[in-house]
Amino acid sequence: MNLKDIGEFGLITRLTSNSIFNDNNLIIGIGDDTAVLPWNEENYLLAACDTLVEDIHFIKGKSTPFQIGYKSVAVNFSDIAAMGGWPTAILISLGIPPDIKLEEIDQLYSGIKNICQKYGVNIIGGDTVSSPQKFFINVSVLGQVKKEHLHLRSHARKGDFIFVTGPLGDSAAGLELILNEYDFIPHYVEAKLLQKHLLPEPCLEEIKVLNLLPGVHALNDISDGLASEANEIAEASQLGIKLYAHKIPISPEAELLGKLINKDPLDWALAGGEDFQLIGTISPEAKEGLQDIFEKKLNKPLYIIGEVIEEKGVYLDINKKVISLTKKGYNHFSL
Amino acid sequence: MNLKDIGEFGLITRLTSNSIFNDNNLIIGIGDDTAVLPWNEENYLLAACDTLVEDIHFIKGKSTPFQIGYKSVAVNFSDIAAMGGWPTAILISLGIPPDIKLEEIDQLYSGIKNICQKYGVNIIGGDTVSSPQKFFINVSVLGQVKKEHLHLRSHARKGDFIFVTGPLGDSAAGLELILNEYDFIPHYVEAKLLQKHLLPEPCLEEIKVLNLLPGVHALNDISDGLASEANEIAEASQLGIKLYAHKIPISPEAELLGKLINKDPLDWALAGGEDFQLIGTISPEAKEGLQDIFEKKLNKPLYIIGEVIEEKGVYLDINKKVISLTKKGYNHFSL
Repeated sequence: MNLKDIGEFGLITRLTSNSIFNDNNLIIGIGDDTAVLPWNEENYLLAACDTLVEDIHFIKGKSTPFQIGYKSVAVNFSDIAAMGGWPTAILISLGIPPDIKLEEIDQLYSGIKNICQKYGVNIIGGDTVSSPQKFFINVSVLGQVKKEHLHLRSHARKGDFIFVTGPLGDSAAGLELILNEYDFIPHYVEAKLLQKHLLPEPCLEEIKVLNLLPGVHALNDISDGLASEANEIAEASQLGIKLYAHKIPISPEAELLGKLINKDPLDWALAGGEDFQLIGTISPEAKEGLQDIFEKKLNKPLYIIGEVIEEKGVYLDINKKVISLTKKGYNHFSL
Repeated sequence: MNLKDIGEFGLITRLTSNSIFNDNNLIIGIGDDTAVLPWNEENYLLAACDTLVEDIHFIKGKSTPFQIGYKSVAVNFSDIAAMGGWPTAILISLGIPPDIKLEEIDQLYSGIKNICQKYGVNIIGGDTVSSPQKFFINVSVLGQVKKEHLHLRSHARKGDFIFVTGPLGDSAAGLELILNEYDFIPHYVEAKLLQKHLLPEPCLEEIKVLNLLPGVHALNDISDGLASEANEIAEASQLGIKLYAHKIPISPEAELLGKLINKDPLDWALAGGEDFQLIGTISPEAKEGLQDIFEKKLNKPLYIIGEVIEEKGVYLDINKKVISLTKKGYNHFSL
């Protein structure tokens, strides 16, 4: 058997079995956006890590070092937000190839420090090593969450509404612009979508506001596309999710790009990934209050896009049909 | 200015300035073996990370995947031991090149899980990503230390004795055997020295015993050679250290290899690195008690190799002369 046969998820399942050798030091291990560890009376400790590799996660010349630094931290902060928490510290490991310039590393760190300063997070350590060819960066993040604000994927309840914190598909639309050379896209569209892909913002302010009132149950950040994340919540909660295509927020810029290059922006939302918005479930009683406070504090809507149902699986109501959504999105031919 | 001009330590100094954006969440940031963070009434939280890269830190074919996995975790546990603590959890990021076999990853994880099980440490998360050419592994470690057992590099006091927990230079001698093909080395010598280089053991049991009695002050793990670590303690404590060459423990195997290939094993001890023994300072009053309990519990001696002096710098008493030891070791021509 080789790696391709079992895929990334198969590999992770294979490697992560039998990983716990001391039950005392653990609340939740592998399986959610971060691990959850005991900390003190009021809080849990959160921990996670993410790696970005040159030519796999970014292309030199298409991203600036500042953007690579900023994004490598942002994706980790997003994991902390997805648990209901706030980041407190990061460790940074850099793999530095021989041809890199000192200015590039300075700019990379400028991006890292910019986002750390914005959210009051300390850089507490790391490692810098040589890498024979390609640049890589691993960020490990620690965070804290009040015990009552810990939101797991498995916390969805039947009858909950599904919300997302912002438009989806912008990041995938931005990637589309990086991978292709279109010369007929309005500048403002290009600028907005590239920004969403290259400088994503973790939803930390959003979760801070949502934590002001009770009622948020399950929570996930949208790193692998809406279809994948909704399936993760449904599976972990052993329930189903029904989404309404016309309620999924698409930005005017992604909408326009879709028209101009004849692609469906809904695909970007469902299967694109890296939007780093939050998807969650809220109790029906809490819906109005959470929508009000979200709009008032953040000046943008909390989008309600579906509900939690008893029948397992994820379903999309689109064009008066209801189709099944797998982790990879949906099949156009099944419509 | 380019990277080569400033070197690794210069780069780290450059990048790690202005890294603290929230004083509340920090006891000690960058600068010791691990960061120290607030945890609970009795304990501090420790955090660090280390990366190993193919062709830089290990050579495929010279190390087994099991050894690479084991060592990548051992070096992190060693950092926790060097603070007086015990590891509790690790996060693992793997950069996987296309040509790797599933069996190799299984064996790597077998090494990782072996050492985690040995010390009761949980694997709580990680990331697996593609790497275009070379394999890499980053391990981030969390640990805990009782507040009274936190031993910093800066804790040395004038008059303290310097101790090390075991023979030095074995790992560098093992590397010598990997990088050269000698066909006249006795098998038992080769086996022992390769083991010390490829499967180093963190001094966790050692620090557990040393923590049983008061009296340990400064502490460091020997990852970069005795000369470098002694200089770090002296600098951080703003004192000096005098070492006695004839007291530095060298194993019979390293001694014999040195004779056979006409090299001085003291060089391996001073400048070789990766022994992962502990070097520390103890108060004169505590010396006898600590030596007794160490010998009784671990059935090996605690080696006293020098003392803390007022005059700054690190000095080596060798062949009836006293020479200055820089971080890189000493110059044979100055003798």
